[in-house]
Amino acid sequence: MIKEKIKQAIEILKEKNIDMWLTFVRESSLIPDPMIEITVGTHSTWQTAFIITKYGDTIAIAGSLDVANIKAYGYYKEVIGYVQSIKEPLLEVLNRIKPNKIAINFSIDTIISDGLTHGMYLSLMKYLEDTEYKDKLISAEEIISALRGRKSKTEIKFIKEAIDETLKIFDKVSKFIKPGKTEQDVANYILDLVRKSKLETAWEEKQCPAVFSGPESAGAHAEPTKRKIQAGHILNIDFGVKKNGYCSDLQRTWYIKRKGEKTIPKEVTRGFKVIVESINRAAKALKPGVQGYEIDAIARNYITSQGYKEYPHALGHQIGRSAHDGGVLLCPRWDRYGKLPYQKVEAGQVFTLEPRLTVEGYGIATVEEIVQVTESGCKFISKPQKEIWVIQYIK
Amino acid sequence: MIKEKIKQAIEILKEKNIDMWLTFVRESSLIPDPMIEITVGTHSTWQTAFIITKYGDTIAIAGSLDVANIKAYGYYKEVIGYVQSIKEPLLEVLNRIKPNKIAINFSIDTIISDGLTHGMYLSLMKYLEDTEYKDKLISAEEIISALRGRKSKTEIKFIKEAIDETLKIFDKVSKFIKPGKTEQDVANYILDLVRKSKLETAWEEKQCPAVFSGPESAGAHAEPTKRKIQAGHILNIDFGVKKNGYCSDLQRTWYIKRKGEKTIPKEVTRGFKVIVESINRAAKALKPGVQGYEIDAIARNYITSQGYKEYPHALGHQIGRSAHDGGVLLCPRWDRYGKLPYQKVEAGQVFTLEPRLTVEGYGIATVEEIVQVTESGCKFISKPQKEIWVIQYIK
Repeated sequence: MIKEKIKQAIEILKEKNIDMWLTFVRESSLIPDPMIEITVGTHSTWQTAFIITKYGDTIAIAGSLDVANIKAYGYYKEVIGYVQSIKEPLLEVLNRIKPNKIAINFSIDTIISDGLTHGMYLSLMKYLEDTEYKDKLISAEEIISALRGRKSKTEIKFIKEAIDETLKIFDKVSKFIKPGKTEQDVANYILDLVRKSKLETAWEEKQCPAVFSGPESAGAHAEPTKRKIQAGHILNIDFGVKKNGYCSDLQRTWYIKRKGEKTIPKEVTRGFKVIVESINRAAKALKPGVQGYEIDAIARNYITSQGYKEYPHALGHQIGRSAHDGGVLLCPRWDRYGKLPYQKVEAGQVFTLEPRLTVEGYGIATVEEIVQVTESGCKFISKPQKEIWVIQYIK
Repeated sequence: MIKEKIKQAIEILKEKNIDMWLTFVRESSLIPDPMIEITVGTHSTWQTAFIITKYGDTIAIAGSLDVANIKAYGYYKEVIGYVQSIKEPLLEVLNRIKPNKIAINFSIDTIISDGLTHGMYLSLMKYLEDTEYKDKLISAEEIISALRGRKSKTEIKFIKEAIDETLKIFDKVSKFIKPGKTEQDVANYILDLVRKSKLETAWEEKQCPAVFSGPESAGAHAEPTKRKIQAGHILNIDFGVKKNGYCSDLQRTWYIKRKGEKTIPKEVTRGFKVIVESINRAAKALKPGVQGYEIDAIARNYITSQGYKEYPHALGHQIGRSAHDGGVLLCPRWDRYGKLPYQKVEAGQVFTLEPRLTVEGYGIATVEEIVQVTESGCKFISKPQKEIWVIQYIK
């Protein structure tokens, strides 16, 4: 997979006419540049330069003790070791290739393209201070967005496998949810299934799954509490797994029937249907070339037109190696999203669609699906939840 | 523990006369600032400012969806939420406190103090560009070094527990090592014990444990290979566990006897004794006020005086929440270590001592012990390995 992504990176460098891409890290297991898992595949201890050029070079410059390991992985054709300082071998390679542009991993808008720490940036500037190269540094954001965004067939296959595992777990959870159990009980049950299936959670376990029950539940991103599930609650779960290094990220919603309740309360059904419809409308418009905010606005405006408050987050994000895979975001043009809502959707990208609304007195209705952008539109790769899932009343 | 460390941080801010310390993060589970686990305790998604002042304020400014979670942890007295941009609430807090110095997490020399990404630095500069505060930013390195370095009694207790678990595992490994088993067999055996004991490895599993067998073994930091253990090999293991969030990091060395071999080869015994003696000499000199390179030089010079090549790395590093805990390093004055060898040792710091040398034809002799700096010297908190451990020959 890393070989495949390095090859793709070389193509992207050609397409964007950028000579050189430099991933510059140290102790990468402590503060991992998100590119490590895409184009490097192993961690190093001392300052290490992983260089890919549009001419097809792959060069690693690493501390002497890291060399054997990087060579063993075999992704970089040339591996240069140093003992005292990376400066000389780095300048030697730059002088050999003479790049006009050197892309490095920083970005105001996307954390996934922002793996270079500020101290490492200053360190690099110190090495380059007497050279012409210090003025040739650019952000690698567009390379990284393209490389992470354009999924290969294998990558799509892996994401689908992660989705399937998640849906299987949701099926089991439907049988576990009962009034009297706490949000934490449900979370622990899910984490147990994750461990038994030898999977990992798609993001940190404390919030994966996130479980929200009833009208008093905390907002998204909170950890499961000791709050008890009650009849008449809406319950929803935000959860994903990582399999073969690729993530799923899905949300499903349940209603817990009250004693003697024949049908689901109208408000609940209505809220849920509005969510499903907003997803369908957004998916219908999602295709290469549109800007992220246009898609977000379709779902957002539909929900507010139905009399609900707008959701305080993005409609959807890309997914891949990471549950939040960066690049163009389906989000409103809010300051905190920087230029992400203005970027254009490309074929091969995989997005979540995850609007939410509050059904007063019951809880939060939210569904999160996953779609893959095709040449002319998009298709669902998660089996969509079309009806709210019902838990029968049990004393 | 986090409450304790925040309190200690306020004392350190007073001592160093720094008004404000700002930990500025986003999606911290993806690129974790190493300070999160010391003074924050949970991850957040959007741009988040965790502020501690010398006046005793603890203020978090976070995206609205992260607020409930940060409040639930209760470490920050004031938690301010925002929806669209952190800029306004951040400036409001700055204008209220009017700091003369704002320490932020970047450092050329220590990755542990370098959790701020370059993109986040640029983002912060943008928020501050029309204010006086942009000129008041300083590196938080000295705060972080003091805070991580000066261990409380509880922290020392946790490190000792991690050491004890590691030594127990080494005892079991002594019974597992046999000619014909591969380095990977040994590593898998250890990882199994780690899982059964519900521990984590102190650094990434691929290299924890690191297992090196025989004269052809890879250098430090390589992953275990399919190389088979043979009679007449020296074998060593570099390994640590994390327990209660605190790490151990130890190395032990074995000799595998040849058929009919009565005594250990003289060269092997001699190499091992030189390692032990170099550790003892370094430990004898380690005390508050000495500079890191002075201690490294004692071990390094002793080893070369005995006719061996010098080790291509530092003598030792601090240990705590992280196996490489940053701050003053016992290392030579090489470029790649920046100013770390010049920093001074303080009481309460915990260091590894881990010299190595090659015994030609046999393998690598290396021991790694852990010492705690006291007011007047240091004491071993790992039970030192004094003799090479012997594996009897079995066909």
